[in-house]
Amino acid sequence: MFFETHLDLLHGAVEANRTRLAWTGFTPIETPTAGDAEELVGVYDGATLDLSAAWSAAITADEVSPYTGKSLNVTYGAPTVDEALAGAAEVAVALRDAGARARVGVCLESLRRIHQRGQEFAAVTSHTTGQSLNMACSGSGTNALDRGLEAVAMAWAVLDRAPETVTWQQRFGKTPVTLNKRYRARPLGTALVVACASFPAWNAYPAILANLATGNPVLVKPHPRSVLATALAVSVIRDVLVDAGLPADAVQLVVDTVDAPIAARLATDPQTRIVDFTGSQTFGTWLEQNSGNALVFTETAGVNTVVLDSVHDLAATLRTLAGGLSLFSGQMCTTPQNIYIPDRGVQTDNGIVSRDDVVAALVTAIDDLAATPRRAAAVCGALQSENTRDSLSALTARAEANGTLVRRPVAYEHPEYLHARAVTPLVIRVDPRRGDSLPEGEEFGPVAFVIDCADRDSAVEHATASVRAHGAISSYLYCTDDAAIDDISDAYADAGASLSANLVSSMPMQYAAAYSDYHVTGLNPAGNATLTDESFIAGRFRIVQDRRQVEG
Amino acid sequence: MFFETHLDLLHGAVEANRTRLAWTGFTPIETPTAGDAEELVGVYDGATLDLSAAWSAAITADEVSPYTGKSLNVTYGAPTVDEALAGAAEVAVALRDAGARARVGVCLESLRRIHQRGQEFAAVTSHTTGQSLNMACSGSGTNALDRGLEAVAMAWAVLDRAPETVTWQQRFGKTPVTLNKRYRARPLGTALVVACASFPAWNAYPAILANLATGNPVLVKPHPRSVLATALAVSVIRDVLVDAGLPADAVQLVVDTVDAPIAARLATDPQTRIVDFTGSQTFGTWLEQNSGNALVFTETAGVNTVVLDSVHDLAATLRTLAGGLSLFSGQMCTTPQNIYIPDRGVQTDNGIVSRDDVVAALVTAIDDLAATPRRAAAVCGALQSENTRDSLSALTARAEANGTLVRRPVAYEHPEYLHARAVTPLVIRVDPRRGDSLPEGEEFGPVAFVIDCADRDSAVEHATASVRAHGAISSYLYCTDDAAIDDISDAYADAGASLSANLVSSMPMQYAAAYSDYHVTGLNPAGNATLTDESFIAGRFRIVQDRRQVEG
Repeated sequence: MFFETHLDLLHGAVEANRTRLAWTGFTPIETPTAGDAEELVGVYDGATLDLSAAWSAAITADEVSPYTGKSLNVTYGAPTVDEALAGAAEVAVALRDAGARARVGVCLESLRRIHQRGQEFAAVTSHTTGQSLNMACSGSGTNALDRGLEAVAMAWAVLDRAPETVTWQQRFGKTPVTLNKRYRARPLGTALVVACASFPAWNAYPAILANLATGNPVLVKPHPRSVLATALAVSVIRDVLVDAGLPADAVQLVVDTVDAPIAARLATDPQTRIVDFTGSQTFGTWLEQNSGNALVFTETAGVNTVVLDSVHDLAATLRTLAGGLSLFSGQMCTTPQNIYIPDRGVQTDNGIVSRDDVVAALVTAIDDLAATPRRAAAVCGALQSENTRDSLSALTARAEANGTLVRRPVAYEHPEYLHARAVTPLVIRVDPRRGDSLPEGEEFGPVAFVIDCADRDSAVEHATASVRAHGAISSYLYCTDDAAIDDISDAYADAGASLSANLVSSMPMQYAAAYSDYHVTGLNPAGNATLTDESFIAGRFRIVQDRRQVEG
Repeated sequence: MFFETHLDLLHGAVEANRTRLAWTGFTPIETPTAGDAEELVGVYDGATLDLSAAWSAAITADEVSPYTGKSLNVTYGAPTVDEALAGAAEVAVALRDAGARARVGVCLESLRRIHQRGQEFAAVTSHTTGQSLNMACSGSGTNALDRGLEAVAMAWAVLDRAPETVTWQQRFGKTPVTLNKRYRARPLGTALVVACASFPAWNAYPAILANLATGNPVLVKPHPRSVLATALAVSVIRDVLVDAGLPADAVQLVVDTVDAPIAARLATDPQTRIVDFTGSQTFGTWLEQNSGNALVFTETAGVNTVVLDSVHDLAATLRTLAGGLSLFSGQMCTTPQNIYIPDRGVQTDNGIVSRDDVVAALVTAIDDLAATPRRAAAVCGALQSENTRDSLSALTARAEANGTLVRRPVAYEHPEYLHARAVTPLVIRVDPRRGDSLPEGEEFGPVAFVIDCADRDSAVEHATASVRAHGAISSYLYCTDDAAIDDISDAYADAGASLSANLVSSMPMQYAAAYSDYHVTGLNPAGNATLTDESFIAGRFRIVQDRRQVEG
């Protein structure tokens, strides 16, 4: 029933996946006021959410708003590994037998209902992740819904590719033999989806829905300090499942604590056949190596580089870059980190600008952004975790001590929340040629390293070596020479990385468009899964066939 | 160039993959005479084949014709693990940069040239595997070529699905932003293909060509006692690569010995990113668990069951079954092994036939086939390995001792080769209810176990439990009740197995049609790879993207 209702939406998304042109399935979500948002979150204060088949313990999650500093005070039923897996096994047949249309219908209706409750989801996302309310409405709102719809559409396209039945006829010797054949898609088995703290929807929606569409019961395990937004999504899907006559436990919430994590045991249990993980590179790689019984999809982290060679308009470029470094306080997997500037400075339409001047202008652009509280709040949001603030402080102290500090990560003045975990980018400037060191991998949060380098070629060489060693999710180039862009694209592609050139606009530089931009190549250490290519879908189900001879 | 030449062939195969109707890309190969075949094989007597980038040792393979008992006496360059991997790395960029069209063209032209030399390939296949010459022309000839073409067509379809470039435009605030985007398919990396002794082409062609089409350099490691047919295929592909201006080492032959196997080291080397394995379930499972850095595709073995419940024409059914047990002396992964017959006997159009009578009639049907030397030779061929004859003897002795022996695996009289390793099926009859045991897994070779069981339901229950425990590649049912077939198909599907019902015809029961029959479901212990679904292709390449802002 839901399938037919949302057929236009589905077909639109299937077509967008094919053409890869700009498209969205969802109208914008109007940003709620701070007061409305607090009220929407407050509704869950003291609540207990029961979102699994059985649970012998309950956990009041350690969820604290990065804005108000108050605990969300929400309790979740917390199934054990065995309870969760048993619950999934219990519903597997019903989910499988519902068929692709019914399951895809459930996915589409779930997206619609989440979209309808967009302000509530945004409020909860903001007060758990630290995203600003407007980012929570877009990045974690419509964009995440589009990314989910993209995966559903890809799943439907792949599922729909084989015919359901054929009459096959072939001559053997003199006799024509006729067989009636049936092809039935069958799910691989119980799936685990592990979401991250700062962006829980964007990667989890595609994984949850791709699993559900292909018939695999899903266990969703959010980060223990960022549970509620994911829990609400699970709750919506469970409601839709029931409305479709399917068991709610086809999607269950699994909750753990920082001190007693459950993901490794869930992922390596022989009953678990699919794992989707968003989080640290260390644990992602461990999962890839140690989940021999499961299909493992990872999206982790990398070091995103910027090569700043030549631009038309330096001021506009640095505004874009300052925005990129500040957006959600650098807590996005697409945030630039290492910025290479050649010794000769940056070529502009008005001549060369020295590196010192470029660095100073970048700092000014960040300062300008930070100085306007309302804009700073909308762009930067807040730090999800106190740990990030601690590591920023430590980095700042080290940089100060060794003389590489360029800009301190001072707090901006949040217009509504005096005690928000508000911060602006830390900028450090290093020259590896004189022995300055760079971190081994991503520094999570708003940290930029300006790297002095000899020239464009050495910048690209250093940056692509970094991609090979540490991975990269998004890489950036500013260069006015089109032939050089071709060569540099090749160099990044050889390292397994995608590249964006000359992004200077109202579009945030780290924006990745569902239906058009493949997110994570799967060819470098930042993860093995791509949102959403065919490999993200194809193995989640297989085809079981039967054939009956009817003649011959 | 080759791409354009073979465009019709490619399009035909793409379309056949979609419709899943009967189709072939290759005209039948005329069976050579025994004398001609010996001559074709004799050409390689004393030859040294040089089919890799570098090799510090040469191996004269332990290849002995199952027909003549003579050594083939062919020597192969045998690169070390490091030499083979270095050779693959050396050509990776050239193969990748050739692009999908050039690589698919190479695959198509290679298939055409192998087809042209069909008699030679059949002769070599026959004198290494023991396949009869006519099976070597069909099963290992046109069928294997079709299976290879199927994979090439699937690879092309998947590669061709994303556009190469788009101009993407979206409004951000008031400004429309325009990006030119490019999507480039990039190979995962060096691929290892491990072929089996008895059917080296059927599984290896799809794996080799799927890798090649998607741009991955391939190391092909045949079974140490069945090298030459694979070596010739590698040699053809290397010639075509060179003719296309590409490096021959994009496909290399790797050779080892039974005493010093090399596959595990090759598969687990961090440079190896894809492994396709055909062979034992034990090693296949080990590879799935231990090749964390590689995408692993396995096709191993299972216990194929037959439930014999009700038929229209018992004689025709038992002729088909006798043929199925005898075909290539039971050395196919689709050969039936465990035959369930209910206590009440088998229902036929002429009434019930008791189980004793059915068993006697099955033995007669096998005897009849075995008694006609020319037909027996064409159907049974010979045993690839002396080990199989040894294990048959041991099984026979045990069955004789415990009173379960029904039919000895006597040799048939080969019309040309007095000393052929010729054999006909061993039949053992057991009743698990009285404590008779069944082997834990596949008994390779011509061995059938007739299993006495209470009724159809208990047969299906026992058989599907066997699928879950040991895997199955093909499962068979004889039943005249269509509703019962539905239920039994469901039961097999639930166990992750495909089912063929009521095959009684000139088509060999274990025939699997390229473009139509999915081979191996990937849902039971018989392997995780399916010939050829999208999951067999999708992960072998990924898409690297670049985007350049042109406006906004």
